[in-house]
Amino acid sequence: MTDTRTDGRAVDELRPVTIERGWSAHAEGSALITFGGTKVLCTASFTNGVPRWLTGKGKGWVTAEYAMLPRATNSRNDRESIKGKVGGRTHEISRLIGRALRAVVDTKALGENTIVIDCDVLQADGGTRTAAITGAYVALADAIAWGRQKKFIAQRSEVLIDSVSAVSVGIIDGTPMLDLAYVEDVRAETDMNVVVTGRGLFVEVQGTAEGAPFDKRELDQLLELGVNGCAQLRDLQTAALSD
Amino acid sequence: MTDTRTDGRAVDELRPVTIERGWSAHAEGSALITFGGTKVLCTASFTNGVPRWLTGKGKGWVTAEYAMLPRATNSRNDRESIKGKVGGRTHEISRLIGRALRAVVDTKALGENTIVIDCDVLQADGGTRTAAITGAYVALADAIAWGRQKKFIAQRSEVLIDSVSAVSVGIIDGTPMLDLAYVEDVRAETDMNVVVTGRGLFVEVQGTAEGAPFDKRELDQLLELGVNGCAQLRDLQTAALSD
Amino acid sequence: MTDTRTDGRAVDELRPVTIERGWSAHAEGSALITFGGTKVLCTASFTNGVPRWLTGKGKGWVTAEYAMLPRATNSRNDRESIKGKVGGRTHEISRLIGRALRAVVDTKALGENTIVIDCDVLQADGGTRTAAITGAYVALADAIAWGRQKKFIAQRSEVLIDSVSAVSVGIIDGTPMLDLAYVEDVRAETDMNVVVTGRGLFVEVQGTAEGAPFDKRELDQLLELGVNGCAQLRDLQTAALSD
Amino acid sequence: MTDTRTDGRAVDELRPVTIERGWSAHAEGSALITFGGTKVLCTASFTNGVPRWLTGKGKGWVTAEYAMLPRATNSRNDRESIKGKVGGRTHEISRLIGRALRAVVDTKALGENTIVIDCDVLQADGGTRTAAITGAYVALADAIAWGRQKKFIAQRSEVLIDSVSAVSVGIIDGTPMLDLAYVEDVRAETDMNVVVTGRGLFVEVQGTAEGAPFDKRELDQLLELGVNGCAQLRDLQTAALSD
Amino acid sequence: MTDTRTDGRAVDELRPVTIERGWSAHAEGSALITFGGTKVLCTASFTNGVPRWLTGKGKGWVTAEYAMLPRATNSRNDRESIKGKVGGRTHEISRLIGRALRAVVDTKALGENTIVIDCDVLQADGGTRTAAITGAYVALADAIAWGRQKKFIAQRSEVLIDSVSAVSVGIIDGTPMLDLAYVEDVRAETDMNVVVTGRGLFVEVQGTAEGAPFDKRELDQLLELGVNGCAQLRDLQTAALSD
Amino acid sequence: MTDTRTDGRAVDELRPVTIERGWSAHAEGSALITFGGTKVLCTASFTNGVPRWLTGKGKGWVTAEYAMLPRATNSRNDRESIKGKVGGRTHEISRLIGRALRAVVDTKALGENTIVIDCDVLQADGGTRTAAITGAYVALADAIAWGRQKKFIAQRSEVLIDSVSAVSVGIIDGTPMLDLAYVEDVRAETDMNVVVTGRGLFVEVQGTAEGAPFDKRELDQLLELGVNGCAQLRDLQTAALSD
Repeated sequence: MTDTRTDGRAVDELRPVTIERGWSAHAEGSALITFGGTKVLCTASFTNGVPRWLTGKGKGWVTAEYAMLPRATNSRNDRESIKGKVGGRTHEISRLIGRALRAVVDTKALGENTIVIDCDVLQADGGTRTAAITGAYVALADAIAWGRQKKFIAQRSEVLIDSVSAVSVGIIDGTPMLDLAYVEDVRAETDMNVVVTGRGLFVEVQGTAEGAPFDKRELDQLLELGVNGCAQLRDLQTAALSD
Repeated sequence: MTDTRTDGRAVDELRPVTIERGWSAHAEGSALITFGGTKVLCTASFTNGVPRWLTGKGKGWVTAEYAMLPRATNSRNDRESIKGKVGGRTHEISRLIGRALRAVVDTKALGENTIVIDCDVLQADGGTRTAAITGAYVALADAIAWGRQKKFIAQRSEVLIDSVSAVSVGIIDGTPMLDLAYVEDVRAETDMNVVVTGRGLFVEVQGTAEGAPFDKRELDQLLELGVNGCAQLRDLQTAALSD
Repeated sequence: MTDTRTDGRAVDELRPVTIERGWSAHAEGSALITFGGTKVLCTASFTNGVPRWLTGKGKGWVTAEYAMLPRATNSRNDRESIKGKVGGRTHEISRLIGRALRAVVDTKALGENTIVIDCDVLQADGGTRTAAITGAYVALADAIAWGRQKKFIAQRSEVLIDSVSAVSVGIIDGTPMLDLAYVEDVRAETDMNVVVTGRGLFVEVQGTAEGAPFDKRELDQLLELGVNGCAQLRDLQTAALSD
Repeated sequence: MTDTRTDGRAVDELRPVTIERGWSAHAEGSALITFGGTKVLCTASFTNGVPRWLTGKGKGWVTAEYAMLPRATNSRNDRESIKGKVGGRTHEISRLIGRALRAVVDTKALGENTIVIDCDVLQADGGTRTAAITGAYVALADAIAWGRQKKFIAQRSEVLIDSVSAVSVGIIDGTPMLDLAYVEDVRAETDMNVVVTGRGLFVEVQGTAEGAPFDKRELDQLLELGVNGCAQLRDLQTAALSD
Repeated sequence: MTDTRTDGRAVDELRPVTIERGWSAHAEGSALITFGGTKVLCTASFTNGVPRWLTGKGKGWVTAEYAMLPRATNSRNDRESIKGKVGGRTHEISRLIGRALRAVVDTKALGENTIVIDCDVLQADGGTRTAAITGAYVALADAIAWGRQKKFIAQRSEVLIDSVSAVSVGIIDGTPMLDLAYVEDVRAETDMNVVVTGRGLFVEVQGTAEGAPFDKRELDQLLELGVNGCAQLRDLQTAALSD
Repeated sequence: MTDTRTDGRAVDELRPVTIERGWSAHAEGSALITFGGTKVLCTASFTNGVPRWLTGKGKGWVTAEYAMLPRATNSRNDRESIKGKVGGRTHEISRLIGRALRAVVDTKALGENTIVIDCDVLQADGGTRTAAITGAYVALADAIAWGRQKKFIAQRSEVLIDSVSAVSVGIIDGTPMLDLAYVEDVRAETDMNVVVTGRGLFVEVQGTAEGAPFDKRELDQLLELGVNGCAQLRDLQTAALSD
C-alpha cells in the first residue's frame, strides 16, 4: 500500500485539467481539453435534419467518433484509414462517448437536428476516453446554444437535462487511485471508467480486472473516488461554459 | 414496481439453461449453450504455438470471436462478411469474452499454446454475450484437457485458476431483474452485465443507463442479483464438465 | 475397383439424412439438415417488397447466402468478416444455391416479395453445398406457406413449380460413388454435383476432373447415381414437409 | 425448332476465331484471342519460385485471374478496384480457368516455378470464359517454353500432358447450338460450358438451366456439340503455336 | 550532354504515335492510342443524366478512370481489385486526366449528361498518363458527337471549347528531352508532364525533381519542348477525328 | 485587376506564419505550424531499421502521411477510416510531401533508419499541403538531430543537403497572388503549388488551370511570387530551428 504517486499527486487527486473552449474556428462547438499530458480536441458539428431512419419522429440525434493521431502515443500506430478498418478499441470508445452524451440529452427537445461530436486525441497519456467525454460535453453545450441562436432549436426547450463527465480510477499495488496516467494505467490490477452526471448519478460504470479479480469493497472504493473526481470535472465544465 | 415477468419467472430467476458439451465433432472443446431462447455454439480451437508477438516468452494466448448468424434475430441482419467490416458491437463483445476467459487462465501454465474460442449465436433472445462467456468457459476447459492429454501442456500445470460465468441484470419499471430476455432488455432503464469467477469475485462490471441514470443503491441491488445468478451458472458448468 | 466404403455404405447409398424442420424460432421457414456429419442450418427470411432494380415488374426475388462457421471444419478457418472479404468458394456456392432455388420458383406467382435463404454450415463433412440446397428447399417452402397465410402471396398462386434437391457424386479409385464424405471427396479423381428437380430433370450439372480427365461413359454413370440419390432426397423433403 | 442463327451461322458452327500469339512485349507468354466480337488478352507471367505454402515440395503452381474492362460490355460496369471487392462471377471464372489449365499441367515437371495467367476481357460478346481458357492455354505453352529456354525447367520434362480448350453450348428455342454470342446467351433456356482436352476428355462440364430444367437427351446433344467445337479450337491452338 | 537517344530519336522528337479511333464496338467514343511501346485503350461512356449532387444545375459532368493491366509492365503487379484498394498513383493519374478534359469542356453546353472516360493501359513503356490524356480527348470528342446525334446535346451547343493533349519531358544527363520512354524515365533527374490546349495554353504543369532540384532556365527549356510536342499531338488528334 | 485582398494583405504577402517546434511530448521531432487559419501538426517518428524492400542497401527511408481531422473544414467530412479507404486527394498530398522531403535528404548519410512524418490538419483555411511541407521539414530536422544524438546516425554525416519549404500561388481576377486563403483559393483561375529548396531551386512545380488555361507570362509571374514566398518561409524555419 502506498499513497505517493509517480507525479507526486495524492491518490484522490486529478491531474491538472484545462479546457480551451471554442478552439475551432469552424465547428459549432469545440473544446481542447487536457488531463495532464492527455490532449483531446473535441468538435461538435450541428446539422439541421436527422439520418433517414429517424426522419419524421420529431427527435434529434447525437453521436460521437473517437480517434487517435498516429503519433499521439509513445510509439507510432498505423492509421486506421490506411489499414482500411476501424479497430475494436476505437469503435468501443466512440460508442461509449455517444451513449454518455445521449444520457443527458432530451432528443425531443433537440428537435430534428443532428450533432456529431469528434474527439481526436492529439497526445495520449492515459484517460483519453474520459477526457474525451468531459470535453465533448462542453462542445455539445456550445453546439446546442448555436442551434438555439440559429432557431433550429426552440427557444424554451431544455435540451440538456444534466451535465456529464468521466474519469478513470484503478487499483495499483492494492491502492485505489483517481485519474490514472499512462504509467499507472499499465500497472493497474483493476481499471474502471465511471461516467457521472452533474447531479451525481451513474451513466456508465465499466470495471475490468486486468490482473486479479476484485471484490465488492474495492469496487465501492473505486466508485467513490470516481464520483468525487467527476464532481470536480463538472465544476471545471461549468466554469469553462460561463466564461 | 412489479415482480411478475412476461414468462412467469421470479425477478431473481434464471431462464432454463442447458449446456450440451462436446457438440462439435471437430473442435478440441465445444458447448452448445442455451439461456431460454438464446442459443450459442462455442468451439475452442487449440493450436500448439503462439502468435509471433508472443513467441519465446513461455506464455500462451487465449482469444475469442463472437458473431451472430444473419437470422438469429427477429429480422434479418446483413452479414458482416458481405459488408466487408466487423461492426463495433461485435468487436466489443469479442473483446469482452476474451478478457473474461483470460482472467481465469494462467498463461504461463498454458505454455506456448493458443486457444481461440468462437462463439456463434445461432438464435438470439437477449443475453447472448453472457451465454457466450458461460459456454466458452466449458469449451475452454475441454480444450485445455485435450492439450494436456496430447502433452502440449505439462501434466501438473494448473492452467485454470478459477471458473468464470456471466449474466445480465437490469432495472425494468423500477424493479431490478436477473437474466433479461429480449423483450425485457429493450424496456430496461439500466442494463448491466457482470462477469464473476467461481469464487465470487468480479472480472468485469459493465453498467449502462439506457434510460434514466442510476444511483448507488440500484447499482448494489443489480450486483447482488448478478453475483447470485453467476453462482448458479457456475454450478451448471461444474455439472456439465463432470458428466 | 472396390465397392466397400470407409463407413460401410454401398456405392449408391446416401449417408443418414435428417431434416429438422422449423428449427428457428424467428425465421419464416427453417430447417437443420444433416448428411452424415455435415450439418447445415437453413433459414428463409421473407420480406414484403423487392430490391429496387426489380420494383414494379410484378415479380418476386429469391436469393441465397452460404457460409461456414470458422470451426465447422477439421482445422479452424479465419472468419470472412475479419478478413474483410468473401472468398471465391463462398460466392460460388451462394450463387449456385440461389440458381437452384429460382429454377423451381415462379417469380410472378410469388409477387413482389423477397425471400433470402441463409445456409450456415455448423459442421462440415463433405457435401455441404448439396445439403444446403436440399435443406434450403424445405425452408423456402415454409416461407412461401407463411407468405400465403399472411396474404402477401395470392391464395391460389402456385409459387413452387417443382421441388429441388442436390447430391454429390464422384469417382474414387475408378469406382463411381454417391454422396461423398470428406475423406472420400479429397481422394476423388472426378467430383460432380447434380441438382435435380422432383420430376427428375437437371437444374445444374457441375463436374470437375480433380485428377485425370473423364470420359462420356464415366459421366453417364455419375449422372445416373446422382439422379437416383436426388429422388431419395426428394422423398425425405416431402416427408419433412408433410409432418 | 430452327437452324438459322442471327449471324447466319449453322447451329454447330464456331464464330470466327483468331489467336494473335505474342501480343505482349513484356509477358513470357501471351495471346490476344477473339471469338467473334469477344476479345480477351491473355498474358502468362513466369516466376522462378512458388508461394510459401508450396515451398520445398518440388512442385510448381499455375493460377489464373480473369477480369473485364469497365466498358467491355454494352453498358459500363463499375471497376471492382473502385468497389473494393471482387465480384462472385469474377472469382468463379478465375477459379475455373485455373482448374482447366492445371488439369493439363504436370506440376512436378514444372518444378518450383509459378505461372500466373491474366485473362482481361477487352470486349465482350458472349463466351468470354471459354475464349479466356482457349487463349490462356496458348500463353501458358509459350511461358513454359520460355522457362525451359531460361533453364528454370529441365530440358526433358514434359510439363504439358495435353492441351485444353473450352466452348459454350446452349439450347435456344429448343435447338442445341454451339458457341453462343451474347444475344443468343441471354435467350438460352440451358447454358453449358465444356472444357475438353486435346485428346477429347472432359475437364469440366458446367450446365445450368436458365429457363426450364433439361433432360438427359438434351444434355447429351450439348456435350456432343461441345466436344466437336473444342476439337476445332484445339486445331487452331496447334496452328498458332506452330507459327 | 548528349543528343543521341537509346532508340535513335532526336531530343525533341516524339515516338511513333498511332490513334486507332472507334476501337470499341460498344463505347460511344473510343481510341486505342500508342506512344511507341505504350498502348492505352480509351473508351468514353455517355449517360443521359448527372450524379445526384449535380442534378438540376443544367450542367454536365466529365470524369476519368485510369488503370493498368497487371502485366502491362515488365514484371507483374497485383490487381488493385484483389488488393481491395486503389493505389495513390492510380488515383492521382485518374484525377489528372479528368481535370485535363474538363478544362476544354463547356459543361453548360454539355447539358445534364455524364461522360466517363476509361483509360486502360494494355502495355506500358513510359508516358502512360500523357498518352491517356491524348487518346481520351479523341474518345471524348466522339462521345460528344454521339450525344449530339442522339439529341441529348443541343445541336448548336459548342461543348468543346478547345482540344487538349499531353506529353512528358525530362532532363537526362543534363539534356532536356521530349516524350520519355521507360528506360529514359527511370534515369531522368527531372520529370515533367505538360498538358496543353490546341491553342497552346497550359492546363497543367507538373514538374518533379527526381534527382537534383532544377532551376528556372531548365524549367523553361522543358516547357518549350513540351509545348512543341503537344502541338504535334494536336495535329494527330485532328487527323484522327477527320477520318 | 486588383491589389487589395479580403484580409488586407498585399498580393505578394504571406499570411502570419507561426512554427511551434517540439509541440509533441512523444515524437522525435514535431512542429505545430500555422499559415493564418491553417493549422497543421507535424510529427516525425524515427525508427532504427528500414522496410524490408530496402534492407541491406545502406540507405534510409523518409515518407509522409497527410490527413485532415473531420471538422478541420467548414463543413464536416466523413473519416477515411470509417469509409474504409483513403481518398485520392489524401494520397496525392501524402506522396507530394514525401517527395519534397526526400529531395533534401541524403539517404546514404541517414543510414538504415526510417523517418515517418505525419501531417495532420487540425484546422484548414487554404494551403494545407504547403504548410504541411514547411512544418514537416522542421520536424524532420529535429528527428535527424535526435537520431544523431542517439548514435543511430553517424556524427559527421550530413543528412540534410538543403532545406525545403512550399507555398501556394494563384491568379485571381487576373492578378497573381501569394499564399491563398480558402476564400481566395476557390475563386482562383489558376492554382499553383511550388516547393523550393533553401538555395532557391525547384523541387516541385504543380500548376493547374481551374478556370481558364494560362500562358507562359502568367506562369513566370506565379513562379517568381512562389520563389520569394519560399525564401521567407526558409528564414522562419531557420529561426525556429535555432531557438
